[in-house]
Amino acid sequence: MITPPKITPVILSGGAGTRLWPMSRDDRPKQFLALTADQTMFALTVMRVADPARFAPPIIVAGERHGALIERELGDIGVAPAAVILEPCARNTAPAIAIAALVSRPKAALLVMPSDHVITDPAAFEAAIAAAMPMLEDGWMVTFGVTPTAPETGYGYIAVGEALAPGVHRVSRFVEKPERARAQAMVAAGDHVWNAGIFLFRADAYLQALATHAPAMFAAVQAAAASATLDGIIIRPEPGAFAAAPADSIDYAVMEKAARVAVVPVSMGWSDVGSWDALYDFGSVAAGGGIAIDTQNCLVRSDSVRIHTIGVSDLVIVASGNDVIIVPRGHSQRVKEIVDALKAR
Amino acid sequence: MITPPKITPVILSGGAGTRLWPMSRDDRPKQFLALTADQTMFALTVMRVADPARFAPPIIVAGERHGALIERELGDIGVAPAAVILEPCARNTAPAIAIAALVSRPKAALLVMPSDHVITDPAAFEAAIAAAMPMLEDGWMVTFGVTPTAPETGYGYIAVGEALAPGVHRVSRFVEKPERARAQAMVAAGDHVWNAGIFLFRADAYLQALATHAPAMFAAVQAAAASATLDGIIIRPEPGAFAAAPADSIDYAVMEKAARVAVVPVSMGWSDVGSWDALYDFGSVAAGGGIAIDTQNCLVRSDSVRIHTIGVSDLVIVASGNDVIIVPRGHSQRVKEIVDALKAR
Repeated sequence: MITPPKITPVILSGGAGTRLWPMSRDDRPKQFLALTADQTMFALTVMRVADPARFAPPIIVAGERHGALIERELGDIGVAPAAVILEPCARNTAPAIAIAALVSRPKAALLVMPSDHVITDPAAFEAAIAAAMPMLEDGWMVTFGVTPTAPETGYGYIAVGEALAPGVHRVSRFVEKPERARAQAMVAAGDHVWNAGIFLFRADAYLQALATHAPAMFAAVQAAAASATLDGIIIRPEPGAFAAAPADSIDYAVMEKAARVAVVPVSMGWSDVGSWDALYDFGSVAAGGGIAIDTQNCLVRSDSVRIHTIGVSDLVIVASGNDVIIVPRGHSQRVKEIVDALKAR
Repeated sequence: MITPPKITPVILSGGAGTRLWPMSRDDRPKQFLALTADQTMFALTVMRVADPARFAPPIIVAGERHGALIERELGDIGVAPAAVILEPCARNTAPAIAIAALVSRPKAALLVMPSDHVITDPAAFEAAIAAAMPMLEDGWMVTFGVTPTAPETGYGYIAVGEALAPGVHRVSRFVEKPERARAQAMVAAGDHVWNAGIFLFRADAYLQALATHAPAMFAAVQAAAASATLDGIIIRPEPGAFAAAPADSIDYAVMEKAARVAVVPVSMGWSDVGSWDALYDFGSVAAGGGIAIDTQNCLVRSDSVRIHTIGVSDLVIVASGNDVIIVPRGHSQRVKEIVDALKAR
């Protein structure tokens, strides 16, 4: 019996978005919040790929300022990573993944995942990974495409091409976040999936593609890795060299340009939790003991004050620290307007 | 030229209601909140009757636990009271007023007022007082009846009888808080006014009526006053005797039973501020700098967290300390349900 090679999870924790403000803030972005369960999104992501029979210890890539949070999170769940790469500045996903690939063995299978996504059907995810693995020997880079459940305009799409192997297709085309009509057409046609930002490839395949399609980035990251400082398992790329890398996503810098790019369509209860509305299905957590009377179809979350509602419906109400937002359901992406208004002061 | 006798304001500050919860709490009830202006309701009430040309120093009646608040409020506005009566327990308005009458000269004209009402047209109030004053020599007790602006079911009504003097009518009947249909009929007929709980009478007239119609209360309060302790201008009725007085309102104990009871109808922009809805016209005070975007017809108040709203309308949102309530406009009296639910825990 041949033991299949173990997969090295590469968990990207560089995000610092404000879409879930006021809970998500610069010093504690979304991945460090317990939004869908008692554990943080980061912890759930790490534990999803922690089975030692199938996965090697993970590589974490995060911002320098979140190093202490990462250390505490990993300690809480008892996971010893292979490496924690602390970026001196944010350069988007392509350089972050490049550093992880450079510190890996060339033939290592890297499963690249954002740390702030939800997957409610992990068995489907595991099956998709199993389907993708055989492709890696031939140098393919695989992306996981989520079967759309609605014509979302907030996601990129992937056109699913010819079948390459059971469950695996060639990527015909990456489609940027579409207009509503185009999203509806793609979902109706059934030949497009959402780009979930989850990838599987060998380290050498990624680095070779990067060197080919983004040579300046490759050179900068290689220099940053060569001069990195090591502190136990903590790796700090050389700041000057890393900052010289162009900031770009893996999609733009590599996947859209490389030749051998495959997609595994999968339905796995995935969400990027891009707004408070996306959390409605996970229920209200009125921390602090708020009272709800005659309250219908509301999302109520608080990590500070008690929120009491009477006779209201279809509202998103979120309190964190000194801030409370109140916005109709379906419009929670407008929280950005509050953040912008506060910044403009 | 004859100088008219000065009027002694008797300001009742015994309330401890929860209708404006979460801002109004036992340790700082409504009258000590700045709800309609930069000053508290108590301060506004005292200053409304502070013209030394027309008013004697006021008598304040309050609960023992609010003595320090009263002292600070009076200090802030620079008013030296004639007396501050601190009740050892709450016995409703009839005993409170009786204590004030007992420490006054018998012929003193007492203007009895709650400390937590709004009057936006003080000139109309003053004119009503001037119309009422001549009645006192003949032993009349005068109540001020507010011309209704809506068929409110939260107020008692007074049936206006025959004219006794310019602007002054005999009270035909006191009507308890009515059903909606009855309120509409009374307002349509135009012969009823709201009972505002504001009264003018001589001390001796009130005490005589009390002795006649509530002799047990009169005896208990007289005993409590006779054994009161004095601390400068602070008067503390003897607790045992005061507690023996039946708890009853001036309306039930005296005004509804006495013979010579008159009413002066007046439109003076009066409100008892009995709910958050009543404060809507006074505007939002989003303390702490909350942002409101596309927000229509909402009352937003906070003395703690910042409340940010986007795309909502017709909501009452109030934050105080660790609590936030969210209720549709027109239903803010339901805050009582929250208070009850919290107590039931």
